[in-house]
Amino acid sequence: MTKHSIQKELTVVKNLIKNEIIEEKTISDLYKYIFKSNGKQLRARLSLVASSINRRKGKKRLKLAAIIELLHTATLVHDDVVDESPTRRGKKSVNNIWSNSHGVLIGDYIYSKAFILMVELGNSKILDELAKATNDISKGELIQLDAISNKEISLKNLEDISYYKTGRLFEAAAKSGAILADADPKYIKNITNCSKNLGIVFQIKDDLLDYSEDEGLIGKPVFQDLKEGKVTYPFYFANKNANDSEKIKLGSFLGKKNINQKTVFKLISNLDGIRETEKLALQYLKKAARAANLIDDKNISKEMIELVNSAMYRKK
Amino acid sequence: MTKHSIQKELTVVKNLIKNEIIEEKTISDLYKYIFKSNGKQLRARLSLVASSINRRKGKKRLKLAAIIELLHTATLVHDDVVDESPTRRGKKSVNNIWSNSHGVLIGDYIYSKAFILMVELGNSKILDELAKATNDISKGELIQLDAISNKEISLKNLEDISYYKTGRLFEAAAKSGAILADADPKYIKNITNCSKNLGIVFQIKDDLLDYSEDEGLIGKPVFQDLKEGKVTYPFYFANKNANDSEKIKLGSFLGKKNINQKTVFKLISNLDGIRETEKLALQYLKKAARAANLIDDKNISKEMIELVNSAMYRKK
Repeated sequence: MTKHSIQKELTVVKNLIKNEIIEEKTISDLYKYIFKSNGKQLRARLSLVASSINRRKGKKRLKLAAIIELLHTATLVHDDVVDESPTRRGKKSVNNIWSNSHGVLIGDYIYSKAFILMVELGNSKILDELAKATNDISKGELIQLDAISNKEISLKNLEDISYYKTGRLFEAAAKSGAILADADPKYIKNITNCSKNLGIVFQIKDDLLDYSEDEGLIGKPVFQDLKEGKVTYPFYFANKNANDSEKIKLGSFLGKKNINQKTVFKLISNLDGIRETEKLALQYLKKAARAANLIDDKNISKEMIELVNSAMYRKK
Repeated sequence: MTKHSIQKELTVVKNLIKNEIIEEKTISDLYKYIFKSNGKQLRARLSLVASSINRRKGKKRLKLAAIIELLHTATLVHDDVVDESPTRRGKKSVNNIWSNSHGVLIGDYIYSKAFILMVELGNSKILDELAKATNDISKGELIQLDAISNKEISLKNLEDISYYKTGRLFEAAAKSGAILADADPKYIKNITNCSKNLGIVFQIKDDLLDYSEDEGLIGKPVFQDLKEGKVTYPFYFANKNANDSEKIKLGSFLGKKNINQKTVFKLISNLDGIRETEKLALQYLKKAARAANLIDDKNISKEMIELVNSAMYRKK
């Protein structure tokens, strides 16, 4: 297996998804629009890497990757409604161009399409894993929703949210890929464990990028979480290290649309919010790398380590 | 099988659903709230009636009915977000008490819970039917959304919407029940066909009830569809029969929040909007009754005919 061949497979996956477009004009318009935006296809990639241990599963591997990508897309579309995001991947979001109602329904449409394809795969263990993952993702989002403006949120709670809303689908992508490949339990365990922690690294890094000094650096708006009232790691750690008057100042930024980003960044940074978040990400990175190293197939092990590193050291 | 025993089973189904509540406080609060409201459990009932041809499937029959009820509830919760409904079954809706975001996420949570339970049932034909039904429902809702304020909508289109958004789950409830019961193809065909048309009758009657002269009669707000800009059968037929000036008048009511309900009712009624809708409902009722009569099991046949009649002649 080469990285090049996985990249080629991802293009096929994208076309597979496009060909699932159905006849109704509106739906196909929405669908095309959503899949035109270029995502990283990281979850589909994980699924392909995990299943690549058994190449005989050719078409089913691609189909599974498409299913994972559809599930991810459905959560994105619903997330944008929940967060009232005007943009997604640098383009207007569905809820912005059409309406919240379209966002809700097209999300449902994509979810159920993914389930139809899953049933076609005909593997009950995969169905079970993906149904549970989908449920966990919504659970994570609900917990996060109720954590809005909650300055007292615990680190444990933040880590749970990162797992449920992000790590869980990374985990399920790898696990279902490995199950599809009829891999041995040890391989399934290690690649699943690696992907789960990789997902958490990815989420922590996302939270960090949102606390970038300058949006020019990452090509999308920054301090969105803070503006939405979401407490994430940088805020959490800064708040933990703050004295009473600093706590009041930090609290005053939470949920406020108009903030002086330079001031906020400086305060959070001076209170070690950035540094401690990076330290936490490195802890998960180590867990992920350790699990990757336990994978016997050297190519797959190497590929996983590269993915872990790129999740951590990406610039956007 | 007696009606009494099905009624008892429906209570068990309700408890089954309650026991699926998970530990998180918010989710269980939302969940309890949603299932406290007393729905008709019509879809769960259809599933139980259809599967009652083979009573040996005891627990699985109840589980399937719970799944059907969960799927229906998820669509209701999302519908309320889409329609921005402040109430549901005479109580405040989730999106009203909590928020739209809660509505989106709790809907996703219930959907995926239903899929988890479906996978546990372990019948791929049932999975296939229910995944497709879920997809069709969202398709119907999307088509309806784009039909808003469309006075030129065709009767065919309106009938498609009634089938996809309502008839489809009635159909799937009966079909999956019959499949679970290992019934013969003839029975599956007839009860499925009966339920599908029963669902369409139910939807047409819903549209009719919304054009009630007085909300006191049905115990919920009336003329909601008109106020939301939704063209349904009574408007469609009235508009078809209207002369130019009447068409302009009708059009002026569409999507308007403040209307004189008496005036609207009189105009729609004088233009045969009510009568022609009733005639259409009776056509579907006949189809449903014909299919019910082809069911060999006399008890089930009779029960289905009663359900068809009560869908048509209900007062609310």
